[in-house]
Amino acid sequence: MRHSTRGMVDPFIVMDVMETARQLEAAGRHIIHMEVGQPGTGAPAEARARLAADLDDPLGYTVGLGLPELRARIAQHYRDWYDVDIDPGRVVITSGASGAFLLAFSALFDNAEKVGLGTPCYPSYRQILKAVGLTPVDIQTTLADRFQPQPRAVADHDLAGLIVASPANPTGTMLDHDELAGLAQACDTSGAALISDEIYHGLGYDRRAVSALEVTDNVYVINSFSKYFSMTGWRVGWMIVPEDHVRIVERLAQNMFICAPHAAQRLALYSMDCDAELQQNIAVYTANRQLMIDGLQAAGFTKFAPPDGAFYVYADVSDYTDDALAFAGEILEQAGVAVTPGLDFDPIRGHHWLRFSYARSTADMTEGLTRLATFMQGRQA
Amino acid sequence: MRHSTRGMVDPFIVMDVMETARQLEAAGRHIIHMEVGQPGTGAPAEARARLAADLDDPLGYTVGLGLPELRARIAQHYRDWYDVDIDPGRVVITSGASGAFLLAFSALFDNAEKVGLGTPCYPSYRQILKAVGLTPVDIQTTLADRFQPQPRAVADHDLAGLIVASPANPTGTMLDHDELAGLAQACDTSGAALISDEIYHGLGYDRRAVSALEVTDNVYVINSFSKYFSMTGWRVGWMIVPEDHVRIVERLAQNMFICAPHAAQRLALYSMDCDAELQQNIAVYTANRQLMIDGLQAAGFTKFAPPDGAFYVYADVSDYTDDALAFAGEILEQAGVAVTPGLDFDPIRGHHWLRFSYARSTADMTEGLTRLATFMQGRQA
Repeated sequence: MRHSTRGMVDPFIVMDVMETARQLEAAGRHIIHMEVGQPGTGAPAEARARLAADLDDPLGYTVGLGLPELRARIAQHYRDWYDVDIDPGRVVITSGASGAFLLAFSALFDNAEKVGLGTPCYPSYRQILKAVGLTPVDIQTTLADRFQPQPRAVADHDLAGLIVASPANPTGTMLDHDELAGLAQACDTSGAALISDEIYHGLGYDRRAVSALEVTDNVYVINSFSKYFSMTGWRVGWMIVPEDHVRIVERLAQNMFICAPHAAQRLALYSMDCDAELQQNIAVYTANRQLMIDGLQAAGFTKFAPPDGAFYVYADVSDYTDDALAFAGEILEQAGVAVTPGLDFDPIRGHHWLRFSYARSTADMTEGLTRLATFMQGRQA
Repeated sequence: MRHSTRGMVDPFIVMDVMETARQLEAAGRHIIHMEVGQPGTGAPAEARARLAADLDDPLGYTVGLGLPELRARIAQHYRDWYDVDIDPGRVVITSGASGAFLLAFSALFDNAEKVGLGTPCYPSYRQILKAVGLTPVDIQTTLADRFQPQPRAVADHDLAGLIVASPANPTGTMLDHDELAGLAQACDTSGAALISDEIYHGLGYDRRAVSALEVTDNVYVINSFSKYFSMTGWRVGWMIVPEDHVRIVERLAQNMFICAPHAAQRLALYSMDCDAELQQNIAVYTANRQLMIDGLQAAGFTKFAPPDGAFYVYADVSDYTDDALAFAGEILEQAGVAVTPGLDFDPIRGHHWLRFSYARSTADMTEGLTRLATFMQGRQA
């Protein structure tokens, strides 16, 4: 049967790592998971208890833009976290951040238009753009620029849009207020659309993450309940769009998704009142982060920028390999630690990099770092 | 801020009808809902009880193609319902039928390619195609052809693909085995992809709906847990793809959706063992269908084909109006019955048609038909 060209996207390498890890576990091996970008925790307990009581309701379709109470609560969240006033009418509830990207790309870009990404970056940006007939443009970033794109890239690459992420995956680096303002200004000047991926907000360490909404209203801000709110499998996220884009996005959402999952929207609403439990997760990530910074260096992984946020360390392993995929395979097989080769995030330079996730328990991170140290000692012996 | 051309899709008129109905209800009016295409019931009670017990699990991401147990159970469903043997590896769990269409369109078609629809049809086919950069082609169908497209349309319109639905929305008509075979043959001859929307399967009355998989493996079959399984708001569906398309669709699903909602996948699995409760819903629709056929004719709506399946009657109201939108507004305002003007389903001829849904309770249908009869008497007086 026929297939398209645009649909032939790259494999998601971390998924193959996960599958190999699963096979090793099925064969009786104990594996430490530093490959996956999801919390080991579920949604907050109190939120789950409240949802259980809702299961007697029919939970049919919601309106396309999502439950009004949840949209209002998210507007409140911007007042609480950022001191920014957002009209609840600009809040769009989506089927995860994934659904938000699909909506944003349809609303903003026509066939084959060029959209820039600062590589290394979340791999699905590139693949979704391709899958819906757009042209992803890799903007190679540097450690000196803390792996974030520079404003000149917008004009240099003749972009119709630019996606930025702060804190970023896989590097954990942030954009500050002035950096975001510079990028927003460059997009405005070029008539390009700025999309700010803020799904790791709330997972910041030494400093608070700045929202693009503190800088401009001329932006699509995308967020999710998967990370801070620990609700990955529920597939619910949100997007803040400019006032004059609400009706465009509403029509697209009604047709492309009908609505985000109703139960997940309820759970999201309840989770927003569970800060005490969620802050316990943050305390775990904070402890894990310091363990990773110290433990990875001790093991011989010394070339990385300490992450400002998220739960990843992206390390240059070019001293040890020219083939990060094979190196990750060795680490999984010999040390029993699953890690992600950089190729998912940067198809060109990624063969020299590994991403270590510290989203799981502190006990797991401690054990994983011990195994990594032993593996590296054995390798150098 | 810039926006795309492709993202400027038509409004979903039924949503505006629902909003007007909501406003009338808020003002104290009692409205009978014959506009919405969703069951009044929720998911089966036993399935909901089993899900409640699962809420202590983290319910993180599933693998991209979905829970293996659910994929196997769906393969079993094809043996049980159709006596067709499907490899569970060909089953893709999706974020509703909506998510299945997005995956199918990316996997099958390149920018601007032409995809045919037999109008009248589900409006979102047209809008999703446009939103992802494809070209929807309306194939005007006739009452004589029971509103289904003919095989010659594939070559006549130089189509890259054809979407068929049986039972269809809004007409409720079915394609039999030979008709499906003729369409599949025409697609094969032209190198076009056939997409068979089977989301109203299980809601058949005088005869059983035939699956395209009984006719060919060279097809994308799309289905959902929203209608027969009464799980609209959970946003979970499935797709059966040809063997050699599984890996293509898997990569797209991993990137575009990560996975379908995990809790919804569990609930879907449990619902597949709740036939006794689900058959009670069918008994209601069967009773409602006969009430509608008799009651609409008695009220003066005589020009329609009795539906083979689904829960809609699509009636020609050209004797009463040239403006179905205004006519639906009159019915809502004066009779307190919400119905959908045909323009959603057929932008050209829809101003002469109304869709009546009988998905709600029998008591509601009885009351609605009484109101419609009174309204029509008053109008002719």
